[in-house]
Amino acid sequence: MRSNGRAADQVRPVSITRNFTAHAEGSVLVAFGNTKVICTASVEESVPRFLRGKGQGWITAEYGMLPRATHSRNDREAARGKQSGRTMEIQRLIGRSLRAAVDLEALGEVTITIDCDVIQADGGTRTAAITGACVALMDAIDHLKAKGVLKVSPLKQQIAAISVGVVGEHAVCDLDYVEDSSAETDMNVVMAEDGRIIEVQGTAEGEPFTYEQMLEMMALAKTGIEQLIAAQKAAYNN
Amino acid sequence: MRSNGRAADQVRPVSITRNFTAHAEGSVLVAFGNTKVICTASVEESVPRFLRGKGQGWITAEYGMLPRATHSRNDREAARGKQSGRTMEIQRLIGRSLRAAVDLEALGEVTITIDCDVIQADGGTRTAAITGACVALMDAIDHLKAKGVLKVSPLKQQIAAISVGVVGEHAVCDLDYVEDSSAETDMNVVMAEDGRIIEVQGTAEGEPFTYEQMLEMMALAKTGIEQLIAAQKAAYNN
Amino acid sequence: MRSNGRAADQVRPVSITRNFTAHAEGSVLVAFGNTKVICTASVEESVPRFLRGKGQGWITAEYGMLPRATHSRNDREAARGKQSGRTMEIQRLIGRSLRAAVDLEALGEVTITIDCDVIQADGGTRTAAITGACVALMDAIDHLKAKGVLKVSPLKQQIAAISVGVVGEHAVCDLDYVEDSSAETDMNVVMAEDGRIIEVQGTAEGEPFTYEQMLEMMALAKTGIEQLIAAQKAAYNN
Amino acid sequence: MRSNGRAADQVRPVSITRNFTAHAEGSVLVAFGNTKVICTASVEESVPRFLRGKGQGWITAEYGMLPRATHSRNDREAARGKQSGRTMEIQRLIGRSLRAAVDLEALGEVTITIDCDVIQADGGTRTAAITGACVALMDAIDHLKAKGVLKVSPLKQQIAAISVGVVGEHAVCDLDYVEDSSAETDMNVVMAEDGRIIEVQGTAEGEPFTYEQMLEMMALAKTGIEQLIAAQKAAYNN
Amino acid sequence: MRSNGRAADQVRPVSITRNFTAHAEGSVLVAFGNTKVICTASVEESVPRFLRGKGQGWITAEYGMLPRATHSRNDREAARGKQSGRTMEIQRLIGRSLRAAVDLEALGEVTITIDCDVIQADGGTRTAAITGACVALMDAIDHLKAKGVLKVSPLKQQIAAISVGVVGEHAVCDLDYVEDSSAETDMNVVMAEDGRIIEVQGTAEGEPFTYEQMLEMMALAKTGIEQLIAAQKAAYNN
Amino acid sequence: MRSNGRAADQVRPVSITRNFTAHAEGSVLVAFGNTKVICTASVEESVPRFLRGKGQGWITAEYGMLPRATHSRNDREAARGKQSGRTMEIQRLIGRSLRAAVDLEALGEVTITIDCDVIQADGGTRTAAITGACVALMDAIDHLKAKGVLKVSPLKQQIAAISVGVVGEHAVCDLDYVEDSSAETDMNVVMAEDGRIIEVQGTAEGEPFTYEQMLEMMALAKTGIEQLIAAQKAAYNN
Repeated sequence: MRSNGRAADQVRPVSITRNFTAHAEGSVLVAFGNTKVICTASVEESVPRFLRGKGQGWITAEYGMLPRATHSRNDREAARGKQSGRTMEIQRLIGRSLRAAVDLEALGEVTITIDCDVIQADGGTRTAAITGACVALMDAIDHLKAKGVLKVSPLKQQIAAISVGVVGEHAVCDLDYVEDSSAETDMNVVMAEDGRIIEVQGTAEGEPFTYEQMLEMMALAKTGIEQLIAAQKAAYNN
Repeated sequence: MRSNGRAADQVRPVSITRNFTAHAEGSVLVAFGNTKVICTASVEESVPRFLRGKGQGWITAEYGMLPRATHSRNDREAARGKQSGRTMEIQRLIGRSLRAAVDLEALGEVTITIDCDVIQADGGTRTAAITGACVALMDAIDHLKAKGVLKVSPLKQQIAAISVGVVGEHAVCDLDYVEDSSAETDMNVVMAEDGRIIEVQGTAEGEPFTYEQMLEMMALAKTGIEQLIAAQKAAYNN
Repeated sequence: MRSNGRAADQVRPVSITRNFTAHAEGSVLVAFGNTKVICTASVEESVPRFLRGKGQGWITAEYGMLPRATHSRNDREAARGKQSGRTMEIQRLIGRSLRAAVDLEALGEVTITIDCDVIQADGGTRTAAITGACVALMDAIDHLKAKGVLKVSPLKQQIAAISVGVVGEHAVCDLDYVEDSSAETDMNVVMAEDGRIIEVQGTAEGEPFTYEQMLEMMALAKTGIEQLIAAQKAAYNN
Repeated sequence: MRSNGRAADQVRPVSITRNFTAHAEGSVLVAFGNTKVICTASVEESVPRFLRGKGQGWITAEYGMLPRATHSRNDREAARGKQSGRTMEIQRLIGRSLRAAVDLEALGEVTITIDCDVIQADGGTRTAAITGACVALMDAIDHLKAKGVLKVSPLKQQIAAISVGVVGEHAVCDLDYVEDSSAETDMNVVMAEDGRIIEVQGTAEGEPFTYEQMLEMMALAKTGIEQLIAAQKAAYNN
Repeated sequence: MRSNGRAADQVRPVSITRNFTAHAEGSVLVAFGNTKVICTASVEESVPRFLRGKGQGWITAEYGMLPRATHSRNDREAARGKQSGRTMEIQRLIGRSLRAAVDLEALGEVTITIDCDVIQADGGTRTAAITGACVALMDAIDHLKAKGVLKVSPLKQQIAAISVGVVGEHAVCDLDYVEDSSAETDMNVVMAEDGRIIEVQGTAEGEPFTYEQMLEMMALAKTGIEQLIAAQKAAYNN
Repeated sequence: MRSNGRAADQVRPVSITRNFTAHAEGSVLVAFGNTKVICTASVEESVPRFLRGKGQGWITAEYGMLPRATHSRNDREAARGKQSGRTMEIQRLIGRSLRAAVDLEALGEVTITIDCDVIQADGGTRTAAITGACVALMDAIDHLKAKGVLKVSPLKQQIAAISVGVVGEHAVCDLDYVEDSSAETDMNVVMAEDGRIIEVQGTAEGEPFTYEQMLEMMALAKTGIEQLIAAQKAAYNN
């Protein structure tokens, strides 16, 4: 039994609220339990310099946390004058994952910037961010279709992300902050709707993990992501 | 008649939601119409170096905007590596205003950091921030009382802030983005519950304004702030 | 009686020395008593990117202080690698104020950059800077006329600035450092020659101030600025 | 057959040169084929502030590339004024991996800083860096033992790292730059001597990868790392 | 005959105005012809961390230029967020030169910071800065003696600096901007009162220079510096 | 007799290894005794903005040190976010010196960037860097000739650099770290093959130095540089 009473393969209650803020072409508030992230998708009908004239689009992401999203206050990165290595790592992961979901040539010379801002953190902020960002991206694509810029959606398939880990001796999915703090191993998995893998990042926080544990975690990730994809579909079709 | 149908002295619908996020000692979502700001108050039982041993506390503020809080996306300040002059100006204003509301000696060696993060902008973000921050501060003070750190509240009185301006030839209060963009004059007023003034900042955006216009704006500010103080009380006593 | 022996409405001896340095199109040393600021106006016959092709000019300002302009040495901002919030706030104020004095369309595609560098500080550096900068700007405009770039001056009218405040219980004008340090309220007013207001920024440093005190300060500001406008004219016509 | 003539499970010629530079407590030049990295370990008998008095040591890493380690010249990060996201990500990975190899409490209040500087890049710089850094760390630990600071080595076991990927349709190990540029999937694996996993990071560069491909890559990683551990031992015992 | 009508060994009119600004312990306006530099010496009765407890003092220097000290406006270093290589080089030279003039142990645990800010540039700003800074330093030392912190002056002897160069085919001293721009060789020499050399920095701007030209320049430097030392003495004894 | 057993005019064993790394158009490992520097020359067939359309090329240099090139570890400049004044000074010197060796108009619209990265430091890193960089530059020029971009070499003549100094009471050349640390005077000389001087920078570290000592040091520099030019030729013709 987990400290939070969940079964090993049970994700937290997931909620995905579309049109959360007014201005962005896609705007989603995603909650994985007490982790809450605002994901907006902003459309610009041009591409960065390094892609000009190459007949393809671009998707990029930025990640931030409000200073008091966490138990104790963190310094504001804008005030400190630089983004931490952790922030950079996460926003690179989000951008890469979303690009893998989209046919960039079919997108045309359009840039979509995804901003993921954590307003409340309780473990799994990066996986919630990717899961919510995918829906914001879908709304932004619909905006481009409605506007006549795109005829067909360049989205190849939905993607979602989940954390899995070894806590005590057991593999569990969708770790909250308390579990995350005591996990021996922490692994984030980004998967597409068809079950193929887009990204896997596993880290031994304490002891190294075995191949068998890795397989066990991958199985939990697959189950969890199926639930998340379903939640995305429910929100999108709502 | 204003473009938004409001009377000259009519503020937008104000909502103040307490306990908006989980971790901060005070956490408020304030909305002035479509302008929405998360204000958190974080308590630390120590003071910055320049105040050590002086037997007083400190209140400071930081301000930010999510990149897509606005009509078109703004660069993320953390990514650019510095806060803009506008951001600095606003956060200095918020901090100064709140310090004026509190007896810092009665606060004792405690620092309260107020973070105001705009999630949706439609004019008046700094005045909404100050108005919401005051309630977050009140909750943080109650937290310190509950914890036994403070016996009596060091809050001298509530404060609130409103923008007033000259649009066309008429003075109006609580300008939204459309009005703000076409205003001849823009003035922000921070006032205490007893009607005394904590800060006034008026700027001629187009033509200079007259002394009479200034008086007219001050009168609107007074009326508006009375409504805001009432809304704070309603939220706090809820 | 003020600590410096001045009457409440008495400004410090003002001196405005034109052509203080050799290279700038306008170069003024302005002194308000012991506060001394070098104000230069630099002309460039082009505009920043955001104004290209819009048929108007631009005026912008930067502010600095020599490290030992003050009683004890301040860190050099260039060495620290960033400008303080105070510096940003002041240079934004100077730029806004001067733009309000000029018909930017009549200026044409010309940028005038005003640099205000404090070499000795004794209170009121921002108001001295604005007052001196206006004269440097007038000389730069004359330079553009002499060169045939402009036929008529785009200056709508002169502007000047003064600080007023409440010290003890009395409103006084043009505070020096000693008064400023003990003032309950500090207010900076920028006014045009015709008595209309360009900017007003009042801050309660101690107790909030009353509406009546604000009116009293405004009256002192008006008297003070008339003296400054006269000093500008005397220097300019010399 | 791979473009470079190697078998799928064949690593490039590995060379590990100890005492490559004179001053560091551990100094290794590691080559994986044409990829060459200088790894130094620097010992300091104190710990960072956040660990003081906790009775444990610390291991941290920094990563850099000489500007012309690559086919075309990259900007120097010191000149640009910040480290890229890629650099941050890699140095965090190196540090985490090495900490997993060491019993930090047995290390005592000692900090070992690992610098990995790529002087020639041909794919797999981060895996070469980790593999070389482990040997530099072992030399630094021997230095501490020789000096009497440590009685027993706090190294739990050796670690090494390798890249594996899917090129065309085949899984291969230890990709060079040409393979890396055309890989569908790129995966970096850090493993301990006993075959347990310390870190796994797999990324779909093109199409998502299947679970079966992941298993295939993991098998290649295991084989490759065994070869690297052997090379480390040979160098260390030399 | 030089373009400015001076003889090869003739320095520009030198003026050294002490007590130029009010707050610094030493404050000098130095002019070498149209080059004008404000040099202040600020005293602090403590030393930087790296010297604590070593029983010696420290002298350091910072250099800056007002943006419009030059023919066309230069970016403000504080706004750009970093000091240029040229600025760093010059302030390091000034600091080193002044430290060579002082017995740092006799100074005791005192730091003197020299700020050299160019308000008008016409060639030779670094040599004027050093020459003026020495007088500001002498005044700061007298301040420490008057205050009883020092009993005897730790100044070993005066120092001064001059530029020499090869213009056309002739060696000349104290180059102005026009000469400097067309010089084949530019050399800055810092010398002590007794004729010994503290610093020499010669650079071929066009063709390399011969040993004979170097000797010729050194002779001019010696003559020039004698004049500067005399000017310092006259100002100091005034 | 020097502490290292060398005669006053004896340089350390010099080795110059060409083609040290694979990608650069010129790549040299230069060693002056235990000082080792990697010098690469990178060719780009374009020029910086300020030279566009002027029909000339550009040569620029950057300098760095691996953090543990020195006895104790230095902070990594990329991590600190800025280059030190020392680094800036040295890379400016290297760039200037190499430009003096080349006819920039004959080079045409080509930029050659020289990177000098110290991997092991034992005094004289800047002089070793210049000496090695000249050979890397020669190889890069040959690359441009082989590619048909240049018909004739724009190199006017070789250059090399050496440090000389006064240690104890004796002038010596090519100081190692131990000598450098105790030198009264430190002088770096850059000279062309024909014996003319490109740069001379002499600094009194302790007592000022005499004119006679300067002449003595210049003589040693000339002898030393002749040996370095010969070593360059031997390496180049190898």
